[in-house]
Amino acid sequence: MLREAIYHRPKDNYAYACTEEELHIRIRTKKNDVPSVKLLFGDPYNWKDGEWVFETKEMSISGSDTLFDYWFIAISPPHRRLRYGFVLQDGKEAVYLGEKGFSDEAINDTAFYFCFPFLNSIDVFQAPEWVKDTVWYQIFPERFANGNPDNNPENTLAWGSVPPSPDNFFGGDLEGVIQHIDHLKTLGITGIYFTPIFTAHSNHKYDTIDYMEIDPQFGDKETFKRLVEICHQNDIKVMLDAVFNHSGYYFPHFQDVLENGQDSKYKDWFHIHEFPLQTEPVPNYDTFAFTPFMPKLNTENLEVKEYLLEVGRYWVREFDIDGWRLDVANEVDHAFWREFRKEVKAIKPDLYILGEIWHDSMPWLRGDQFDAVMNYPFTTNVLNLMAKKAISPAEFVENMSSVLHMYPKNVNEAAFNLLDSHDTPRILTECGGDTERMKQIYSFMLTFIGTPCIYYGDEIGMTGGMDPGCRKCMEWDESKQDKHIFSHLQRLIALRKEERLLANGGNLSFLPSDYHEKCIAYTKSNGKQTLLIILNMDDAATSFKVPFDIDTETISDIWSGTEIEREDDGFSIELPAKGFAILSF
Amino acid sequence: MLREAIYHRPKDNYAYACTEEELHIRIRTKKNDVPSVKLLFGDPYNWKDGEWVFETKEMSISGSDTLFDYWFIAISPPHRRLRYGFVLQDGKEAVYLGEKGFSDEAINDTAFYFCFPFLNSIDVFQAPEWVKDTVWYQIFPERFANGNPDNNPENTLAWGSVPPSPDNFFGGDLEGVIQHIDHLKTLGITGIYFTPIFTAHSNHKYDTIDYMEIDPQFGDKETFKRLVEICHQNDIKVMLDAVFNHSGYYFPHFQDVLENGQDSKYKDWFHIHEFPLQTEPVPNYDTFAFTPFMPKLNTENLEVKEYLLEVGRYWVREFDIDGWRLDVANEVDHAFWREFRKEVKAIKPDLYILGEIWHDSMPWLRGDQFDAVMNYPFTTNVLNLMAKKAISPAEFVENMSSVLHMYPKNVNEAAFNLLDSHDTPRILTECGGDTERMKQIYSFMLTFIGTPCIYYGDEIGMTGGMDPGCRKCMEWDESKQDKHIFSHLQRLIALRKEERLLANGGNLSFLPSDYHEKCIAYTKSNGKQTLLIILNMDDAATSFKVPFDIDTETISDIWSGTEIEREDDGFSIELPAKGFAILSF
Repeated sequence: MLREAIYHRPKDNYAYACTEEELHIRIRTKKNDVPSVKLLFGDPYNWKDGEWVFETKEMSISGSDTLFDYWFIAISPPHRRLRYGFVLQDGKEAVYLGEKGFSDEAINDTAFYFCFPFLNSIDVFQAPEWVKDTVWYQIFPERFANGNPDNNPENTLAWGSVPPSPDNFFGGDLEGVIQHIDHLKTLGITGIYFTPIFTAHSNHKYDTIDYMEIDPQFGDKETFKRLVEICHQNDIKVMLDAVFNHSGYYFPHFQDVLENGQDSKYKDWFHIHEFPLQTEPVPNYDTFAFTPFMPKLNTENLEVKEYLLEVGRYWVREFDIDGWRLDVANEVDHAFWREFRKEVKAIKPDLYILGEIWHDSMPWLRGDQFDAVMNYPFTTNVLNLMAKKAISPAEFVENMSSVLHMYPKNVNEAAFNLLDSHDTPRILTECGGDTERMKQIYSFMLTFIGTPCIYYGDEIGMTGGMDPGCRKCMEWDESKQDKHIFSHLQRLIALRKEERLLANGGNLSFLPSDYHEKCIAYTKSNGKQTLLIILNMDDAATSFKVPFDIDTETISDIWSGTEIEREDDGFSIELPAKGFAILSF
Repeated sequence: MLREAIYHRPKDNYAYACTEEELHIRIRTKKNDVPSVKLLFGDPYNWKDGEWVFETKEMSISGSDTLFDYWFIAISPPHRRLRYGFVLQDGKEAVYLGEKGFSDEAINDTAFYFCFPFLNSIDVFQAPEWVKDTVWYQIFPERFANGNPDNNPENTLAWGSVPPSPDNFFGGDLEGVIQHIDHLKTLGITGIYFTPIFTAHSNHKYDTIDYMEIDPQFGDKETFKRLVEICHQNDIKVMLDAVFNHSGYYFPHFQDVLENGQDSKYKDWFHIHEFPLQTEPVPNYDTFAFTPFMPKLNTENLEVKEYLLEVGRYWVREFDIDGWRLDVANEVDHAFWREFRKEVKAIKPDLYILGEIWHDSMPWLRGDQFDAVMNYPFTTNVLNLMAKKAISPAEFVENMSSVLHMYPKNVNEAAFNLLDSHDTPRILTECGGDTERMKQIYSFMLTFIGTPCIYYGDEIGMTGGMDPGCRKCMEWDESKQDKHIFSHLQRLIALRKEERLLANGGNLSFLPSDYHEKCIAYTKSNGKQTLLIILNMDDAATSFKVPFDIDTETISDIWSGTEIEREDDGFSIELPAKGFAILSF
């Protein structure tokens, strides 16, 4: 048994409260190294005749990656507190692991063991319930639809007449979204994520000038209020994008500092290294990246903090929005986000708080800051296998298992999964225009754990490379829309609503790695019903043998609507190239 | 190279801000497995000609335990943000490690690497500066000194006339502390930690009846105010003990629930499972352990929270106390402690917040909750080697290295180190009455990293087993005091004040494990000066060869005041049985 490979540390992804009653406990061992792991546990204060009272329970492997197996158990301690350790069995050898290290025998002293001192409800990570069932749709407002020519910016170009560039405008606006609500309703999405809509200079609006106003090119507050109402009438949630890490260059407070230097009453709103301010050769103030046009806000300054918190509260309180997506969230201080959460959740307890973080985000997902982050590790892994073919199906499963075990299960359920966005090439372009592969990728995302998001236009087959290519005007000419993709996504969304297990209703497990030569296969199960999802990654048809002992004569593929009959050695399913099935039993 | 043994995850003890400018980065490898580790790092946004600009820098081993080596580097990123990975060199093989895993070549994509997105000052863990230099003295007020017979409880026994029992009283009080302030001043301590002084039923006062009043047996608010003033005049800080996890049975709010059941307006102040309340066979309400007399407070209830926060504020605001020690702190919710910190630090920014947690406490020591926890892992390890001889010096160093690497360096510097307390046998008793060994143990604690605490009476050789034995009346009869111990501690404290490096002024490193056959040896260094502390654990004299190439003819032992002369092969020091030296060079 390789002791150096074994890892456990309480809290975070290794020991966490999944609900107000249930603790989840995981431990990591070297892959294929330990045949059995048991949890040894008891109430910290339950002693009898001078001996600590404990019991043991088998754990099971919930996933494996390149190097490790991950073991899992759920447990509901009656007094909400737990001392625990692990019994790692390897043939004749049983090794006991506690906080104080390894031991060859069970130690009858609670101090040896790990501790989950008390399961306090308020500390449980809890994303809004509705998020798990939501299918998002991302809108880049300047490019979705021009519903009101009266608010066109100067030099507005005819819709889709030329390719998008970093600084051209096509007049997309909020009225355009209102006018096309039926398109969204028909597709079936239940949440819209809008990239920024506040007054700003650029077409992407990430350079905020006024956090309290709708950009006049997009409409006004009355229009936005109407938009939210219409969305809500159609059971669609609305999430806005806030840029609190930095303001735009034309933010009046920054302009004041540029003008008045040390005398500006806003000089402490930013991180200024010296006066007067200069932008060349590098800015002498902190910025986003090295962009002089995005001065970093000093969120530790009390005035700045109060100003931004009021922005956070204002749009929830006055416009009833359902979520905040937070730009460059990882560079803002944790203390700010803790206050932000308190303030906005006080107004709307089931508001969704989504941080833009591209890397490991555990420190933001402990229940005191965000409900989710944008799941780019998911994106990368999907693209590497399905679009770029840079990894094998087995490697894909290993990588995805790594990502899933980096976080608690309740965090994974609220993760914002995306295939593309205004910051990446479009998924169809990544697939080299292969619509079958692209459809299969969406089949994966919409049957996986997490809350999935469709980038506007993907559903009708739009293409586009890295920004600005991915920011084309939405194609409203029906003759140019790919209806097959649309109905594929429409069916997936409908099925996800119908079959609760397809959203986030049960436990997700990948099949063991031997099953991933040509296919990706995983189950979602709630103990009564199991869905087995199989995706053929190959460019040729293949046969997949169902590795379960199922006690019926037929099982149904709820995607194709066909029934599969038992053969002598069980069930097998034929999958066409890039095929996809959802078996239910 | 054993990849399974290699561990790094940003934040907590592996990548943290030590100051507003300096990041500390650590990585763990299998012991004696990797000859060289470099940090590969750069600004996340610093690209040149499409290539990410990074550099590399050697890391060094800061400690080893049974299974692992820990590597360390300090780095000050000019723009306060960092992408980084590790280059692990093993003969010809160089392996690159980033967040995405291992690679055989350097990857020119920041997404592969780990991220410390921004060093925001407000998120830096910062214990009060004064704590690092403080030597604490723990007083159990009922047993320190009876200064005012007028406030004696009923049935007060003559001072020290009988052994302490769980429910006898000897009349110790605050006036007694005031009268003996010279004893403390002479000893040299600079902080007093008082176990609870608020109105309660028992002699230990952990069963609070009134959080807003001094127990009349101890004095009144005027006396306490005077005590704090006298302490402050003598440069002694004052820390009180608060029990927020549970109240006492006679807390009026709980009595109200006992009396009025469901109709009590305080019924939500506790965790009641059913009415009417019963204490037998087990309480039908949550308690500390299974003690019916300590009902757990519902700190998520807004009224309870506000009540307890006001307790926290009141004694700081009105009496200018310098620290709060928080009983059973691990069972109270994190959310409560975050608010508690904000509220009390708003009144006194350099207040010390010390949690009673016996196990791994990283989740409470991230800068948003406590400044320190009671360092029982330190205690256990010291006792195991020095008193119980259950482990070897080499194992001691390994265990201590584990503990030190569980936390950031700035956390270790504020850790509350103790050898004994009202909850454990006294250290002299643990040493079987061996005063030489006991003195050596204090020599260790007072030259180690952390803020050390002396339990009242240890300094004059008091003995006592587990509670109630350790709670004897302080011995004021000078003929019965061990003056040798007193002057040993007095000298250690004085030296710690004089030599800044002895407190928490530099970096602590244990010598490599070969040097720990009979001795414990560690250095404290600030780059200019080095102190080498050597403790002979053996019961016979031994010679210790100084393993440094020092360019002088003599080095001094600042403990004994002797000079050691260079011999042909460098410096050696003779240490008597249980001896101790502090070499300075």
